[in-house]
Amino acid sequence: MISNKKMIRETLHTRARNEILDLTPLVQRMVGSAEMQNGMVIIFSPHTTAGITINENADPDVKQDLLTKLSKLVPQSEDYYEHAEGNSDSHVKTACVGNSTTVLVEGGKVMLGRWQGIYLCEFDGPRERQVWFKLVGFDE
Amino acid sequence: MISNKKMIRETLHTRARNEILDLTPLVQRMVGSAEMQNGMVIIFSPHTTAGITINENADPDVKQDLLTKLSKLVPQSEDYYEHAEGNSDSHVKTACVGNSTTVLVEGGKVMLGRWQGIYLCEFDGPRERQVWFKLVGFDE
Amino acid sequence: MISNKKMIRETLHTRARNEILDLTPLVQRMVGSAEMQNGMVIIFSPHTTAGITINENADPDVKQDLLTKLSKLVPQSEDYYEHAEGNSDSHVKTACVGNSTTVLVEGGKVMLGRWQGIYLCEFDGPRERQVWFKLVGFDE
Repeated sequence: MISNKKMIRETLHTRARNEILDLTPLVQRMVGSAEMQNGMVIIFSPHTTAGITINENADPDVKQDLLTKLSKLVPQSEDYYEHAEGNSDSHVKTACVGNSTTVLVEGGKVMLGRWQGIYLCEFDGPRERQVWFKLVGFDE
Repeated sequence: MISNKKMIRETLHTRARNEILDLTPLVQRMVGSAEMQNGMVIIFSPHTTAGITINENADPDVKQDLLTKLSKLVPQSEDYYEHAEGNSDSHVKTACVGNSTTVLVEGGKVMLGRWQGIYLCEFDGPRERQVWFKLVGFDE
Repeated sequence: MISNKKMIRETLHTRARNEILDLTPLVQRMVGSAEMQNGMVIIFSPHTTAGITINENADPDVKQDLLTKLSKLVPQSEDYYEHAEGNSDSHVKTACVGNSTTVLVEGGKVMLGRWQGIYLCEFDGPRERQVWFKLVGFDE
């Protein structure tokens, strides 16, 4: 059991107001370093304007279309927004996409579908962001 | 290990059709009472018109803007809705926001970002609602 | 502890571009076969155009309204979509609904609210799809 280890906090830098960063290689490396064979990884964004999702990792146009469509649905400015920071849209997008996910590990491998990648979704960058990773091993 | 304890069912009362209730102090108290040091809490809404999300817990305008924007995107009435109860919008919002989340516990503390709170999102109130909480301790 | 068992991979066939398939009886049967009394099931779609959600399992109109509303919000064609496969909408819907969920098990029973069902949401069918199920038993 390795689940008693503290969660890992990684710092990432985003470069645009809306951006998707691929966390997949990072997660796989953590699982390798921990020598975890069988378990799960809980991936958690401690932010309220940046979420976590799993989506296509092949054609980069998919990421772009996702960000563009979300910005069309939830534009930065609406005359009824009352929050003074001008990032109410970022909060709404984060609530829709979600701020955490769980992936399984089997045989030391992060289990994802062929086209899937684990993403940090920046909705109010550019910023320094943290992502938290908790590796929980299951009993053999 | 405390993970064999049954989940805790809490009853809450909402006061508006759309409302966000902060569950954070409740979750922290449960973790304290259980004396859980290291683990996770799975928070689950057993309803189909009320979800669970994590978002900003500082400026209450964020909650208001989130509810308003969701109601603009998903209005209560659409001429193509077939469900006779008049709450198809509440189901759509719940599917987008999600009905559960998982938070980590370390050193007896619910691990959240500085601005985060755990929320019950009421989308078809006012009602009596249940939220289920499962505390799962990790081995030391 | 049964958590060391490999995840179960089920193959399902969808029949429409947008469709909701009920996974609830399948999950309950798996829990029964594994004789799991106390634990959780992580349900994961390894696809980027099909998600997992929990919503109403009583009136089928709710499923229809959910699919219709999502297609109004996120139509198949937008002049700014760059992804050449013509399914950018399917990716956006999957990101909004999410691609996994966790349900609790107590006394051998999948714990859901009275009206809830666990759903595979097909957003780019008809196709053959996989869903992954990981049963994690908690210590007694």
